[in-house]
Amino acid sequence: MNFNITRIGRTILNVKDLEVSKAFYLDALGFIETESNDKYVYLRGLEEHKHHSLVLKKSDKPGVHALGYKVEKDADLDELEKLFKSKGLKTKWLEKGTQHALGRALHVHDISNLPLEFYAEMDDAERMLQRYDLYKGAKVLRIDHVNCAVPDVQKAYDFFTEELGFACSEYTTTEDERVWAAWLHRKQTVHDQAFMNGNGPSLHHVAFSLPDPLALIHCCDVMASLGYSTNIERGPGRHGLSNAFFLYLRDPDGYRIELYSGDYLTADRDAKPIKWDLNNPQRQTLWGAKAPDSWFNETSTFLDIETGEPVARIEPNLEQRKPEFVL
Amino acid sequence: MNFNITRIGRTILNVKDLEVSKAFYLDALGFIETESNDKYVYLRGLEEHKHHSLVLKKSDKPGVHALGYKVEKDADLDELEKLFKSKGLKTKWLEKGTQHALGRALHVHDISNLPLEFYAEMDDAERMLQRYDLYKGAKVLRIDHVNCAVPDVQKAYDFFTEELGFACSEYTTTEDERVWAAWLHRKQTVHDQAFMNGNGPSLHHVAFSLPDPLALIHCCDVMASLGYSTNIERGPGRHGLSNAFFLYLRDPDGYRIELYSGDYLTADRDAKPIKWDLNNPQRQTLWGAKAPDSWFNETSTFLDIETGEPVARIEPNLEQRKPEFVL
Amino acid sequence: MNFNITRIGRTILNVKDLEVSKAFYLDALGFIETESNDKYVYLRGLEEHKHHSLVLKKSDKPGVHALGYKVEKDADLDELEKLFKSKGLKTKWLEKGTQHALGRALHVHDISNLPLEFYAEMDDAERMLQRYDLYKGAKVLRIDHVNCAVPDVQKAYDFFTEELGFACSEYTTTEDERVWAAWLHRKQTVHDQAFMNGNGPSLHHVAFSLPDPLALIHCCDVMASLGYSTNIERGPGRHGLSNAFFLYLRDPDGYRIELYSGDYLTADRDAKPIKWDLNNPQRQTLWGAKAPDSWFNETSTFLDIETGEPVARIEPNLEQRKPEFVL
Amino acid sequence: MNFNITRIGRTILNVKDLEVSKAFYLDALGFIETESNDKYVYLRGLEEHKHHSLVLKKSDKPGVHALGYKVEKDADLDELEKLFKSKGLKTKWLEKGTQHALGRALHVHDISNLPLEFYAEMDDAERMLQRYDLYKGAKVLRIDHVNCAVPDVQKAYDFFTEELGFACSEYTTTEDERVWAAWLHRKQTVHDQAFMNGNGPSLHHVAFSLPDPLALIHCCDVMASLGYSTNIERGPGRHGLSNAFFLYLRDPDGYRIELYSGDYLTADRDAKPIKWDLNNPQRQTLWGAKAPDSWFNETSTFLDIETGEPVARIEPNLEQRKPEFVL
Repeated sequence: MNFNITRIGRTILNVKDLEVSKAFYLDALGFIETESNDKYVYLRGLEEHKHHSLVLKKSDKPGVHALGYKVEKDADLDELEKLFKSKGLKTKWLEKGTQHALGRALHVHDISNLPLEFYAEMDDAERMLQRYDLYKGAKVLRIDHVNCAVPDVQKAYDFFTEELGFACSEYTTTEDERVWAAWLHRKQTVHDQAFMNGNGPSLHHVAFSLPDPLALIHCCDVMASLGYSTNIERGPGRHGLSNAFFLYLRDPDGYRIELYSGDYLTADRDAKPIKWDLNNPQRQTLWGAKAPDSWFNETSTFLDIETGEPVARIEPNLEQRKPEFVL
Repeated sequence: MNFNITRIGRTILNVKDLEVSKAFYLDALGFIETESNDKYVYLRGLEEHKHHSLVLKKSDKPGVHALGYKVEKDADLDELEKLFKSKGLKTKWLEKGTQHALGRALHVHDISNLPLEFYAEMDDAERMLQRYDLYKGAKVLRIDHVNCAVPDVQKAYDFFTEELGFACSEYTTTEDERVWAAWLHRKQTVHDQAFMNGNGPSLHHVAFSLPDPLALIHCCDVMASLGYSTNIERGPGRHGLSNAFFLYLRDPDGYRIELYSGDYLTADRDAKPIKWDLNNPQRQTLWGAKAPDSWFNETSTFLDIETGEPVARIEPNLEQRKPEFVL
Repeated sequence: MNFNITRIGRTILNVKDLEVSKAFYLDALGFIETESNDKYVYLRGLEEHKHHSLVLKKSDKPGVHALGYKVEKDADLDELEKLFKSKGLKTKWLEKGTQHALGRALHVHDISNLPLEFYAEMDDAERMLQRYDLYKGAKVLRIDHVNCAVPDVQKAYDFFTEELGFACSEYTTTEDERVWAAWLHRKQTVHDQAFMNGNGPSLHHVAFSLPDPLALIHCCDVMASLGYSTNIERGPGRHGLSNAFFLYLRDPDGYRIELYSGDYLTADRDAKPIKWDLNNPQRQTLWGAKAPDSWFNETSTFLDIETGEPVARIEPNLEQRKPEFVL
Repeated sequence: MNFNITRIGRTILNVKDLEVSKAFYLDALGFIETESNDKYVYLRGLEEHKHHSLVLKKSDKPGVHALGYKVEKDADLDELEKLFKSKGLKTKWLEKGTQHALGRALHVHDISNLPLEFYAEMDDAERMLQRYDLYKGAKVLRIDHVNCAVPDVQKAYDFFTEELGFACSEYTTTEDERVWAAWLHRKQTVHDQAFMNGNGPSLHHVAFSLPDPLALIHCCDVMASLGYSTNIERGPGRHGLSNAFFLYLRDPDGYRIELYSGDYLTADRDAKPIKWDLNNPQRQTLWGAKAPDSWFNETSTFLDIETGEPVARIEPNLEQRKPEFVL
């Protein structure tokens, strides 16, 4: 590969009411507000030294924009364009200045029709890691990963590992050895991108890192105090896969946010992926508790990079089983 | 009152297999084993300076023995005998030496037919609080409280507050202002004894204190590692009532154990009890999650102080509602 | 004894600049501001249901007012007056309304010439324990204890235990078995009042409870962020005595504040006090680090209950040794 | 560069008494023992999936062996040999089988005469991350970094960044803009290798990662319980540089071990290094406490890759100042 995708970089979510959403992300989750206007709110975690990792866009139409991946250098974008074009996949350029605080960006649809964005350059922002006086709520540090449902996980897996250079840290197979879900990474954590078998392409959740397990518990308490207790969908608990301590929330528009603490370093490219059986009850949560139906059935719709219309979903090719097992 | 009940002191549980139970309490919960033989295991928490707070007794017949309360001095026992006799309630003496490591004890059945034990004297044991090398599992510090289902909470409440000198920290009422549950204490924590409306008298749970919230999370992790994940019944979560961070487990015989961290000091006798409406969803858990049916429906049977046979249960006089609300 | 002192209740500190002090206590320590005006700031911890436990009084003259102890009922005050008068000790009444939010109060000087205040009644305030959105800095929960240097610890010990009804949890003796320091309590924690051998009577520190050890670490971080790092005098560390995780700060006027987490329940009046040898290096801190000279040598001056002038200090009757050993 | 050094991999320390050292590393620090015999103990952290990251070698002669770096693939070793030979630096091959559990290794002395080892292959071991029942002491997860004193930091910096491909996350300069210390990484944490101005080459410390700040506090407590309190040299505290919560210990032979928790992800190669002034008091510890002299003055001697004799040390070319400032 002659390009270097370095990490998941940002997501953009359409939201109905900017003030309502902003209150949720700032007060309960502890994001830093880099900048806002009447159409956009730009948010970053305490550790992040770039302008934003989450953008809230005012819109009456719900939907998730192309998932933004950072690449090492500008020339990587041209190489990525070649790759996607060579596969007959849609591509589109957004020149520098088109998107606030961002250099030029390549938008594409991947092999699963998932909209992706690649960019090399984003404005700098002050790292607030040592501004402990600003820590509040969940004390969100940084974007960690995105998790998407796709109808054919094997196809998505092959494309991301063989064409885009992702490594697999852990995966789940059915009894007949078909890949049911996979955790793929570029940066040295358990994942940047997870895929699981489901009606899609659709976004299951965006996950943000927390400094320690007590930050997650404190977030639950703060959410209760602020009247957000019904926004807690699942957890806290410990994932079998990834080993992370987790909490799943639904934001005011229903987007699912995972708070995540404590996976492990994946610096060794020669490490063998960990394989989990779909029927292993500890795969989902080490402690054995079940996920609610909503967690299993509800995902968010992506928007097409050209039309801005919802991306059509396809039914999965493997059985979609009630999650004793999905992460 | 001319006696001084100081605190909940101990519980004795009949268990089928001493080795199986001992492994659970030592390895997963982190109790210190004071002494054992082929009929009994005596356990204490890391902070406790008395011989035990939990006794496992080998028996084919499940059941919970009289709940043991410590009193300040031996003469208090005689005063308590007078009180119970004056009410026409059953009493029975167990002279010193009858029970291992314990002075003479008064056994009674209270107004709810609940079997209670009072004692002034128990052998000393080394406080292990600073033996951090022995901390493991949940790092249990000390017995905190017992929670019992009784058919008439108002009656139990009146007896414990007016006759036995307990103070009420928090309570729950129905729409028509009837007491549905109550948290009563002698020591300066939120409770030694809780009562809630239900089929009883029966034991809902025994609770033990932990040093901090991470000890509780670590306990979940250790339980998963040791194959006890199905013993986790509910939580972790934050109680609305008492404010404690909690976890409910079922031990190998099905007795319910609560791990409990972070209530508040109740040193002011003039503090007004906190009242919760039965319909307040945050009463049960501040974070809003629901308790499983088992938590609501299953309680353990007490044994009669004279016959050793199960104490008969009576249906509650208030509606027994699915716990959006019980603690 | 026909009175019941229930717990340490409040301290009043003269401070030069109310705004500077308020910023320190609110932003770094996380106190709740109950009320303020241009002469006084009234502060309470998150758990406290009474109007205040710390009062900052604007004054050009530094000094600590009579240490405020809460008693169970108003009549206790009359009994306490009798006791102090019978010993020939100074007493003075402040009728209800004289001090804001407080019932009538008895001011005295005790056997060490230490100024004390007793009161039965203080206005209620909302307990903020479940307002997690307001938690910040050290998340101070409640006042825990005061520690005073006195020239004759044995005399202070005898007066507090025999005349005022305090129990001793732990104490330190010299090689020739003389009491060098003592930890005394009325509420069921390790102490309300500590005495140690030194130039006095003078205030060594006031201590406040925190919910868990991470709150203490977070406080250090927040203090660094807010420019208070030179206010950190000692710690964090673990006390041998009391077992608490501790941090010592100096407030903007130099008063020493201890943040304190994790001692143990002292509900059993028949528990034997723990004795420590003055030469045991783990007495001071379990981890063995030494206290700075300032911690050992500097204490705050009390104000006379009648004149408001500094209370004269007397040199201690035992050797005042560099603290391998004081707590 | 046509090789890929992936991360610091292991250190080998000569120790006088294997049993004494093993007790320290297993009981107080919580390492997993992979294998032992009468000459070697092989240790790994709970997260590590390779045979070891720390080797204790029985020897009467103290000293640190070549610092072991893992490379991506075997061919990288040949490229590294070329590089070191081209610079006229000493190299030596240890064929597979020469060192237990390790593939062939290239030993060299670098530009500072620091002995380094490169290897591509080490035997696998079970990752114990989810064996929570085995967690004890500090719960060490994995090797994080090594810190060496060298007489010319600029020279070491240039060699590591320009020739070996390391990136710089943070560094310290003198008033006249000379590099006094530097934090360099290959894996995506703040560092694999730190250099600071001092008498060397010599090893200042080896650091291991912990799961959370409470593990570090628990380690202090366990060390006190096991009689190791004099082995605590410095901390706990918060580094300004790297932001990590830290503790410095001395092992039974005096080697300095850092326990380390909570730096940040360095996945963006285009991030600008953070520069600290040597005179910034928060550079050393955010909380402002000073390091003891021993921490500043004492480092461990390396052993020559050919002779096994101590590597001679050279005085530093910048002033070696008392660490208000070193990390």
